[in-house]
Amino acid sequence: MKTAFENRPGAQALLTDLYQLTMAYGYWKTGRADQEAVFHLQFRKQPFRGGFTLACGLSDCIQYLRGFKFERSDLDYLGQLKGNDGRRLFDPAFLKYLSRLKLRLDVEAIPEGTVVFPQEPLLRVRGPLLQAQLVETALLNLVNFQSLIATKAARVCLAAQGDPVVEFGLRRAQGIDGALTASRSAYIGGCAGTSNVLAGKILGIPVKGTHAHSWVMAFENELDAFNAYADALPNNCIFLVDTYESLQGVRRAVEAGKRLRKRGYKLGGIRLDSGDLAYLSIEARKMLDKAGFKDAVIVGSNDLNEHLIASLKQQGAAINVWGVGTMLVTAYDQPALGGVYKLSAIRKADGTWDHKVKLSEQTVKVTNPGVLQVRRFREGKEFIGDAIYDETRPLPGSITVVDPIDATRRKHFAAKTKYEDLLVPVLRHGKVVYGSTSLDSIRERAKSS
Amino acid sequence: MKTAFENRPGAQALLTDLYQLTMAYGYWKTGRADQEAVFHLQFRKQPFRGGFTLACGLSDCIQYLRGFKFERSDLDYLGQLKGNDGRRLFDPAFLKYLSRLKLRLDVEAIPEGTVVFPQEPLLRVRGPLLQAQLVETALLNLVNFQSLIATKAARVCLAAQGDPVVEFGLRRAQGIDGALTASRSAYIGGCAGTSNVLAGKILGIPVKGTHAHSWVMAFENELDAFNAYADALPNNCIFLVDTYESLQGVRRAVEAGKRLRKRGYKLGGIRLDSGDLAYLSIEARKMLDKAGFKDAVIVGSNDLNEHLIASLKQQGAAINVWGVGTMLVTAYDQPALGGVYKLSAIRKADGTWDHKVKLSEQTVKVTNPGVLQVRRFREGKEFIGDAIYDETRPLPGSITVVDPIDATRRKHFAAKTKYEDLLVPVLRHGKVVYGSTSLDSIRERAKSS
Repeated sequence: MKTAFENRPGAQALLTDLYQLTMAYGYWKTGRADQEAVFHLQFRKQPFRGGFTLACGLSDCIQYLRGFKFERSDLDYLGQLKGNDGRRLFDPAFLKYLSRLKLRLDVEAIPEGTVVFPQEPLLRVRGPLLQAQLVETALLNLVNFQSLIATKAARVCLAAQGDPVVEFGLRRAQGIDGALTASRSAYIGGCAGTSNVLAGKILGIPVKGTHAHSWVMAFENELDAFNAYADALPNNCIFLVDTYESLQGVRRAVEAGKRLRKRGYKLGGIRLDSGDLAYLSIEARKMLDKAGFKDAVIVGSNDLNEHLIASLKQQGAAINVWGVGTMLVTAYDQPALGGVYKLSAIRKADGTWDHKVKLSEQTVKVTNPGVLQVRRFREGKEFIGDAIYDETRPLPGSITVVDPIDATRRKHFAAKTKYEDLLVPVLRHGKVVYGSTSLDSIRERAKSS
Repeated sequence: MKTAFENRPGAQALLTDLYQLTMAYGYWKTGRADQEAVFHLQFRKQPFRGGFTLACGLSDCIQYLRGFKFERSDLDYLGQLKGNDGRRLFDPAFLKYLSRLKLRLDVEAIPEGTVVFPQEPLLRVRGPLLQAQLVETALLNLVNFQSLIATKAARVCLAAQGDPVVEFGLRRAQGIDGALTASRSAYIGGCAGTSNVLAGKILGIPVKGTHAHSWVMAFENELDAFNAYADALPNNCIFLVDTYESLQGVRRAVEAGKRLRKRGYKLGGIRLDSGDLAYLSIEARKMLDKAGFKDAVIVGSNDLNEHLIASLKQQGAAINVWGVGTMLVTAYDQPALGGVYKLSAIRKADGTWDHKVKLSEQTVKVTNPGVLQVRRFREGKEFIGDAIYDETRPLPGSITVVDPIDATRRKHFAAKTKYEDLLVPVLRHGKVVYGSTSLDSIRERAKSS
């Protein structure tokens, strides 16, 4: 499928922190480049003080891994980097090694759109230590942000209780890809569409939008502006009514709507972008209904988030389409997911695994050792619990799950409990083995999960 | 100069909200496409409850405007969009018009790296109404985020009181461009370098980095890990000491440093990434000094921001290089600058300007009408005040400036006061007239301002 990542030229091997390259150089120099290692990408806490996270970003990770390659210009750049003695940082023989490097990694991942929980590996990368290290930063960049936004979108959509939510954030996102990526993630999280036309073209997401305040201001008065818009685009009329005074604006939208109806077209609705959205929407609904525009929608916008939407719902707001921009695409109340990528096992010369733990005074920062898999237990369609276990150690028939943060929280699953293992093969020896998935089917998975 | 924007293929005319295109269609249909209009891009409040904002993003805006063009595939995409009656949204004649569209805009802007204040236009766009409208969203996207991050970086650098600050945010930024753009903006704001190697290659920003916890975990013990790293990269040794226990780690870094010294190399320093950074850095400094490593730096990192750095400075922390990631590249405490782009004047048939104001119950949302310029008054090297004025109305010799938000705040400038007008010509009739500026000279402007 098309991803935002695909829209960029060239390979992205330098899309990494310098320390990945210096470590890679160190592994190469010390003869450890090919030592088999296992890394897991996971996060530590649910974002937004919430109860779930939606996994997202895998499509871009696959694109990145598939195209991974050092180009001539990358190596030229690395070749001229200097250390603190003014001499070159990297030996030319290492750059030659990089120029021939082909990834031979095995990667497992939890499919995009799956609900996941802290400490669960979203990705597992296994293979030559040097290679598994080199891809860390890009994988984190791609998974962290996309999972954050998909989760935020899901929260907003849940608050909207089934009403369509449209993502309006292009003007406040982090540049072009930031915006495209946000649009895609928001769509996976449940949004019905975006204002971003480039996301529509590249990713196939439905695009929405009518007019801004400037349209109204460009005319002598509001009614002229609405009528002129209706003349030009009779099949796309959602009038923004708050350029001067919102309820006066609704009256003029109703007038313009009646004229439109006479011409055989449908008034799409109105948009409220300021003021007391609960009160204004209830009044606007009455005015629209009275004029026979029962199907006309009321779009609400203005720095909305899931909490404001829930509150407006509680106040009985008559809004039935929600435009959410800044708060969604920047994940305003928590603009980063603290995803990490940790070494958890390394193969010794005798062929056995050496399990690795990073210690910390904070329990949440201690990492789980091993070659991990996530088993999700089900009862009918509901899932009742997850277990993180080490694939290199046989699991008993019936198991007891212990909360890694709070050892007193335990849950027992009988041997006959139905389950599925969430991490599925994505790359085998560097080759993609994961079937491409359409954006809409990912979105469906998110919805059902 | 090279910008992150340049790294993308093709024109970006669809990098816009759908409503810009529907409005453009409306202006074209109603014969107003070429009516002369003036828009200003400004923001309403200082970010981070701070006292200033650094203008940033102009280089990308110029790239965008210079390359603005609808491609065949853009028009094909627009051609298949449908309205609420299932019929096409845009008339094919309009798409033909777009295919031939060449921007004829006059654009003025405040140069990147200049300190700016709320209500001051960072960009002024003047020209055909349709064209000035079409470019709104992309200009906002490019200026909002970049100015936000440059400002955040400047705040962090001020808190660091001249110590180098290195941007470490790639793994938490909004995708690839989000990260590149953040690296560039952070550099303009005063950062000394970045961990992002692609930003180093494309933008020429100094890159920094040594090793992660995983390096230490890949060895039998910490000392082996440090020595192995020193063997591989003797001229780039800043040891991360907190994989197991920080002060124990410092002791081992000192050991590895002594071995390095014997070989004729310099210990670069250590990095502390967790725990009580004030206490640990003071203890580490003593240990390093005692071993004769007076030049070795202590890098501090771990979700730092300007407030934590100021507090650590106050506690006498012996950190002299600051690694700042997530909090900087996401502008964590305020991840969006509320920049807006507002119509403020439109030329009437008789040639006179019709000044436009958008009203709002919130004073801060009311826009200034006219064709605006910003005059900055100086006394010696210090600037003492700014005046926003309408270029179409002659200014008196001596002027009184009134705060647009609080009319009781006034300041008087005598006729002889020195000044400069901040908005300078960038595009004339669609052609770029602004000389390209090197990243370093923009950074210098930011520093001096």
